[in-house]
Amino acid sequence: MKIGKVLFVLFFCARALHGQINIEKWKIFELALSGPTSGNPFKDVHLSGQFIQDNDTILVPGFYDGEGIFKIRFMAHKEGRWNYVTTSNYKNLDNKKGNFVCTPAHKDNHGPVAVKDTFYLAYADGNPYYPFGTTCYGWVHQGDSLAMVTLKTLSKGYFNKMRMCIFPKSYDWNNNEPLYYPFAGTPLKNWNFSKLNPEFFRNIEKRIKQLDSLGIQADLIVFHPYDRWGFSTLDRSTEDFYIKYIIARFAAFKNVWWSMANEYDFMNSKKLSDWDYYIEQFAKRDKFHHLIGIHNGVKFYDHTNPLITHASIQSEDTYRAKEYRMKYMKPVVFDECRYEGNIPWSWGDLTAQSLTEKFWRGVTNGGYVGHGETYITENPVKFPNESSEIMWWSKGGVLRGESPERIKFLRSIIESAPLHMKPIPLFTWMPFSCIGVEGEYYLGYLNDAQPRSIVIDLPKDAFYQVEIIDTWNMTITPVQKKFSGHSLIELPAKPYIAIRIVKQ
Amino acid sequence: MKIGKVLFVLFFCARALHGQINIEKWKIFELALSGPTSGNPFKDVHLSGQFIQDNDTILVPGFYDGEGIFKIRFMAHKEGRWNYVTTSNYKNLDNKKGNFVCTPAHKDNHGPVAVKDTFYLAYADGNPYYPFGTTCYGWVHQGDSLAMVTLKTLSKGYFNKMRMCIFPKSYDWNNNEPLYYPFAGTPLKNWNFSKLNPEFFRNIEKRIKQLDSLGIQADLIVFHPYDRWGFSTLDRSTEDFYIKYIIARFAAFKNVWWSMANEYDFMNSKKLSDWDYYIEQFAKRDKFHHLIGIHNGVKFYDHTNPLITHASIQSEDTYRAKEYRMKYMKPVVFDECRYEGNIPWSWGDLTAQSLTEKFWRGVTNGGYVGHGETYITENPVKFPNESSEIMWWSKGGVLRGESPERIKFLRSIIESAPLHMKPIPLFTWMPFSCIGVEGEYYLGYLNDAQPRSIVIDLPKDAFYQVEIIDTWNMTITPVQKKFSGHSLIELPAKPYIAIRIVKQ
Repeated sequence: MKIGKVLFVLFFCARALHGQINIEKWKIFELALSGPTSGNPFKDVHLSGQFIQDNDTILVPGFYDGEGIFKIRFMAHKEGRWNYVTTSNYKNLDNKKGNFVCTPAHKDNHGPVAVKDTFYLAYADGNPYYPFGTTCYGWVHQGDSLAMVTLKTLSKGYFNKMRMCIFPKSYDWNNNEPLYYPFAGTPLKNWNFSKLNPEFFRNIEKRIKQLDSLGIQADLIVFHPYDRWGFSTLDRSTEDFYIKYIIARFAAFKNVWWSMANEYDFMNSKKLSDWDYYIEQFAKRDKFHHLIGIHNGVKFYDHTNPLITHASIQSEDTYRAKEYRMKYMKPVVFDECRYEGNIPWSWGDLTAQSLTEKFWRGVTNGGYVGHGETYITENPVKFPNESSEIMWWSKGGVLRGESPERIKFLRSIIESAPLHMKPIPLFTWMPFSCIGVEGEYYLGYLNDAQPRSIVIDLPKDAFYQVEIIDTWNMTITPVQKKFSGHSLIELPAKPYIAIRIVKQ
Repeated sequence: MKIGKVLFVLFFCARALHGQINIEKWKIFELALSGPTSGNPFKDVHLSGQFIQDNDTILVPGFYDGEGIFKIRFMAHKEGRWNYVTTSNYKNLDNKKGNFVCTPAHKDNHGPVAVKDTFYLAYADGNPYYPFGTTCYGWVHQGDSLAMVTLKTLSKGYFNKMRMCIFPKSYDWNNNEPLYYPFAGTPLKNWNFSKLNPEFFRNIEKRIKQLDSLGIQADLIVFHPYDRWGFSTLDRSTEDFYIKYIIARFAAFKNVWWSMANEYDFMNSKKLSDWDYYIEQFAKRDKFHHLIGIHNGVKFYDHTNPLITHASIQSEDTYRAKEYRMKYMKPVVFDECRYEGNIPWSWGDLTAQSLTEKFWRGVTNGGYVGHGETYITENPVKFPNESSEIMWWSKGGVLRGESPERIKFLRSIIESAPLHMKPIPLFTWMPFSCIGVEGEYYLGYLNDAQPRSIVIDLPKDAFYQVEIIDTWNMTITPVQKKFSGHSLIELPAKPYIAIRIVKQ
């Protein structure tokens, strides 16, 4: 292959028409160039591309994709013609010029998600985004056949975010070796940390793209402590090498989020200043400004750090969303609040009722909540570290629980509610929670309490339609009477009831 | 009636035999004397009795019971002959002498309850007492027909302690007038606070005695804020008058406990120093040394006060018993942790499952827990302040809930367990709780989690029998296998499971 030749590898919607490259807004323009294979192309060759439209100039890094191929990926946020020019220390990769036309986004393409109005999330096209996430830490490391089952499960529309590790995971129920390894070398520990394994990252990209086709955000976990290969204890220069590489490869995917860690505080080899450093790297180097979070084990990170876009929290107390919202002045996402399952660890032994309740309590306190599932099905049960169970939380596959349908039901309610709902103290003296738009719309949740009635004070100058929502049985029952002012609302006297109140 | 004549009114088991008065140990010897009716016998006449056996001399106050009758009550804690002599400022009540013989206690008479070995409670005869209390704040103010229903309910053996107000209660579902009033005068507020109404106190005594016959402790609430008659805002001299009177009348009943307040911190007219004063009065004046507690609304009292015998707590977090135990170094009684019911207040809308769970979590963390029930049955539901529902919590009557049978089941397990169980960290890393005797006996509770197995480390030098307890369905199922050391125990994968582990 002749070095220096420009190879267009166009992902997704690129089309050549009369010589013009058209790329849909927020989809990937990819420039592929042939370069050297000798030496260490990962380290020896520097490549970047400048993308220009009017006053917008965006400089993005390139990366080595193996076999002499170097790539630059760009996601345009504005329609119209974009010109580009490359820069490289390798002459034949330098000063390559070209252009493409960014075309309007199709109906289902809303662009990347970002923070909007302090507490909320929205797609780039302005549509609101309410995260209803799930967790399959190691699903990308299991190979195609299981991944296809996972994707089929995800296609049922329960979730719109996936928490997933970039590095493989080593833990109970994650004892198999991954499909690929991120570095060159041989397992378990004989790595060449100066070379990456493009196949590993290509596989992850395939999954990111598959998630995007299902409308699911890929919340990529950069570091985590569950390791038998040495990937949790890289030195700083290797960390930099890896971080730059994943930004160069992944940042042009519109559905990517950066999660610095799963359980940062369980990684004893790293200091707080290390985490601040990583956060800074992503904030500085990712020119597409994806969301940045950092997830805790037991000790919350200081989410007031202005480079962190949203508070990514592990805590089962999802009702505290209201408090954390004001503390951090950011969207609050309980990415982990224990999982539905039956394993002998407390973080994975919730009933479906409990997890569904944690979703409702989180959401009606102004937060967002994440799902996970950990069901043992083998008989007789084995010790966790001897077991090869395929659990959703660890590897994906099928869902066995009863919470996903209820989460989907809640999601449908939230997605049809007014924008910018916030916590409202509708239930004086009561531990029940409510979000809404004052005077217009209220969504209250009564926890696992079983009141046969509730007394609330609605505005006196309007009438309201009340609906009783059974969050477990997924029914919505309108109350015939209209309410105004001091109101006694009869309830079904069972747990997991919500009420929706809408001005007439 | 000739003044100065000695009238023996002998409660319970007193018998005259050959002129000898026999009184069973821990039962009441009552001396009744005729005195003046003119003036204000409550205030003008001072009367006390000294009871002497060998080196024991106990001075107890007398009280005016109306219609010219003055009484002194004494509970002997030692068998054998007791001599007495009265002292009075009224000549014909002074220097009255006599004696009685304290006979052995019958089988069902265990004497009063006191603290034993820091964290535990025991009857005076040494038998352990584990409080499983309930709450009928105003049951003594409702009259005989309802009280008979209440007593019939109590006879089913769910509970062995009753929290009850001395003063009538005014609140939602407690809107009727009481049977009697504590002071002379006319309702609602035209009281003669210098005279008490003996009929009021006689009625309460009747109930205390009925409770005793069912083996139930009467946890008498001295003050409370729920008032429309002015009894929550007495002046200090009236408070003293009332406190001395109830000590003189009630302290000889072996099943009496003194609870300074229901929700002391909701009584705005009283300062912390007032509560310390009341505590001191009971500690000083009650010569039978009944238990003294003070129950909070939202702010715990400082239960380290050495005159407080046990921490009487309102909190739904019964699992914190372990922590409060070490903080206060006393028995910890969650007298209120929300009630089973369906009212529109959160303190009374628990499912039976939730209340049962609060009992199990409290007990397996080394504490004790109290019950209450608040079910609305009227149809359609009325606003609370318009309703005349008879709820167990307010007036007694029948129980409608499903927790009492489960509480009785737990009680039977605890009453057949070894003495002096204490919290044991059997479940490493898990939020489950366990009490027991290290190496011998473990009672663990797995909350509303649904693990299909649990991994625990038992001592390696012995074998253990494991039983699976379904706390909701009230079944106890032995596991066939015997366990030792690192053990995986299979579980039914549903909430509300406990395990009992006994050394073989």
